[in-house]
Amino acid sequence: MSFLDHIRRCNNADLSQFESWFIGQERAGFLHRDFAADVVGKSGLFTRRENGWHLDPGLDTPAKRTAAMRAFLLTLRGRGYFKGLWREEEYAVAPHDGTPMLMAMERSAVPWFGVRAGGPHMTGFVRRADGLHIWVPRRSYEKPTFPGQLDNTVAGGQPAGLGLHENLVKECGEEASIPPQLAKQAKAVSVVAYWNQSGQQLKPDVMTCFDLELPEEFTPRANDGEVHSFELWPVQRVFETVRDTEEFKYNCNLVLIDFFVRHGLLSADDPDFVPIVQGLRMMYTPMSGIG
Amino acid sequence: MSFLDHIRRCNNADLSQFESWFIGQERAGFLHRDFAADVVGKSGLFTRRENGWHLDPGLDTPAKRTAAMRAFLLTLRGRGYFKGLWREEEYAVAPHDGTPMLMAMERSAVPWFGVRAGGPHMTGFVRRADGLHIWVPRRSYEKPTFPGQLDNTVAGGQPAGLGLHENLVKECGEEASIPPQLAKQAKAVSVVAYWNQSGQQLKPDVMTCFDLELPEEFTPRANDGEVHSFELWPVQRVFETVRDTEEFKYNCNLVLIDFFVRHGLLSADDPDFVPIVQGLRMMYTPMSGIG
Repeated sequence: MSFLDHIRRCNNADLSQFESWFIGQERAGFLHRDFAADVVGKSGLFTRRENGWHLDPGLDTPAKRTAAMRAFLLTLRGRGYFKGLWREEEYAVAPHDGTPMLMAMERSAVPWFGVRAGGPHMTGFVRRADGLHIWVPRRSYEKPTFPGQLDNTVAGGQPAGLGLHENLVKECGEEASIPPQLAKQAKAVSVVAYWNQSGQQLKPDVMTCFDLELPEEFTPRANDGEVHSFELWPVQRVFETVRDTEEFKYNCNLVLIDFFVRHGLLSADDPDFVPIVQGLRMMYTPMSGIG
Repeated sequence: MSFLDHIRRCNNADLSQFESWFIGQERAGFLHRDFAADVVGKSGLFTRRENGWHLDPGLDTPAKRTAAMRAFLLTLRGRGYFKGLWREEEYAVAPHDGTPMLMAMERSAVPWFGVRAGGPHMTGFVRRADGLHIWVPRRSYEKPTFPGQLDNTVAGGQPAGLGLHENLVKECGEEASIPPQLAKQAKAVSVVAYWNQSGQQLKPDVMTCFDLELPEEFTPRANDGEVHSFELWPVQRVFETVRDTEEFKYNCNLVLIDFFVRHGLLSADDPDFVPIVQGLRMMYTPMSGIG
């Protein structure tokens, strides 16, 4: 592995296998061609036009769209989709940041509809006399996804209707027993984005990176069963583990590489410097068609 | 102005007005259609094929290309191009980072050939008891470009054949009298990229951002006539000056906005957060065609 290998591994999507779907004029996400033809096209909720699939315009409010799609998703669930991953947790479908939500969608269905998701990913670090250290959790061996892998200090999906910082404070308490007054000091410092494909599912995801400098005497503690254990590692050990192994959950590597860049651990004269920094933000909608 | 306005102002290029030019299989840059048809096409050095303009393949070494192009550029100079900006300073023409230079080109001609340029842009800051401060230089009123505007603490174009960090250390001495042992502590922490058009000229530039924490007792001092004066500003004053005015040279605003993001001065719940962070890196070659 190398840092660029992790970026390539996250950005494994072949967009030629996907078609856009729209709510009104707004692109809401992407459907795999086979899933669109075999499943979505037969739902009665979508019609195919030249540029992609269009949700029934009669569903003219977020509430109506959410309800109609939920009914459809429940029939899919009955047919074996989403397996044990159905969570009764709603994500927002919104085409661009800052625009109002177009509808909400059950979290486990989001990658089937190629809807952009994301959430806060926080690196909790300590400045010790002997250098920078990072609190590294190991995911619970009971988790349905990526059991036992290493993770970002605190991370979570972003439920509809909650602020990013608010969500992070909540996750800090649940996952690491970080009290709110400490968690509130976390700073949003970057964005990491990638296009990950798994079979017919697509994640065009955008993670918001937070840094939190923790006092030396504070020890995070697993609280909700999501985390098996926390260890404080010297940053160089994290650096080498990311660079050389796949021990971290795939997208958490990118958040840590972004941390290494921002904290000056890479050299500008490394020929991979620009490709790495560039590769951390493969974005959803290039501005004004440039690039 | 707003942060997004500065990003839009830097990314004002209409790429439909430009055609690619190639050295072998590699895209070396972009030519404005009118400049290509009226000037470059008549040089005898380029031939037009379906996908753009191709430099004479008989020029089969970097040295031959550099010499032939220099002779052509000198004839253009004789016809009034480049005005007082000709510098006898060579930039590298290289399609991707990490690949060898394909040729060198006089700096003042680079935007006429839409060749990616860049260089180190450093923010020199001080952590004082009363908060973060930034050393802000005002450009000399004698400079041919952007006289009297505010600038990044130290910044410079990247001459061919010099390392980025090496160049930064040199510029730190020349522009701000920062001694080498201090300048060497600067850390490469980000990349800012934009597509700026000025008439027939295109800058698809990539700046490498460095941070240097300076000791409170150090005062930068103009050394080579490029800088009129330095002032130490509280970060909030820099923040507001960037946000609300055009006092900084256009591309320096982006380096400072990147600094504000990395140092946690923006909120993740600002609806502009992702568009701003995304907008700071409009890149040359999207990886694997995604995005």
